[in-house]
Amino acid sequence: MGTVVVGYVPKAEGHAALVKGIEEAKLRGVKLVVVNSHRGGSEFDERAAGVAEQEMSKVKGLLDGSGVNYDLRQLVRGFEPAEDLASIAQESDAELIVIGLRRRSPVGKLILGSNAQRILLDAHCPVLAVKAD
Amino acid sequence: MGTVVVGYVPKAEGHAALVKGIEEAKLRGVKLVVVNSHRGGSEFDERAAGVAEQEMSKVKGLLDGSGVNYDLRQLVRGFEPAEDLASIAQESDAELIVIGLRRRSPVGKLILGSNAQRILLDAHCPVLAVKAD
Repeated sequence: MGTVVVGYVPKAEGHAALVKGIEEAKLRGVKLVVVNSHRGGSEFDERAAGVAEQEMSKVKGLLDGSGVNYDLRQLVRGFEPAEDLASIAQESDAELIVIGLRRRSPVGKLILGSNAQRILLDAHCPVLAVKAD
Repeated sequence: MGTVVVGYVPKAEGHAALVKGIEEAKLRGVKLVVVNSHRGGSEFDERAAGVAEQEMSKVKGLLDGSGVNYDLRQLVRGFEPAEDLASIAQESDAELIVIGLRRRSPVGKLILGSNAQRILLDAHCPVLAVKAD
């Protein structure tokens, strides 16, 4: 049996992906794997780690309330988020990857970021792209 | 109740999108709308129309055998395929659009074509991107 894997980011589009991922995991009756990946290195200090922890606790609250069987993976390592997501999707035998598409302020125009493009092209399973409201 | 809208093209990735669209419509218990759009104009003559008709009859066979409630829309008009798909998705109250991503021969490298990018960015509902095997 497969899984639904969500590429989470602490932004509106990441939240939209998470909400959709919960819905799809319920619909398919499979486990949800939520991946939040940060690149390590100098940008990621203790303060950033604390903020990330707070975000994850909110995500955990949402997941706990959803009734879905889930696995929350927080990764801080040197790879690109797209690589982390692709490798976890393969490990998890994903039948679906859910990602959020970014809205660029202030004009609100959408762009297809390089991470989204890489996931769409590299994924070994279908990729569902959602936008924030 | 929504629909699942498939952007069909008579290629391997279009077939993959159709097969996935049938699966998703069944899973969600909604109607499937299959859109095959050609640009009109000088490239589209009677011969091309005949070939398109043959393709559509194969598609119809697959749909008839699927048990899914469907609507097959063949469009020949002046708009870009991405525009046709987006407008039919809106008319049909789509909850999901399914598209196929193109594989570029002979190296088999995937590219994100301009149609796929426009659909991903312009769609008012989630877009599921699949690849041919």
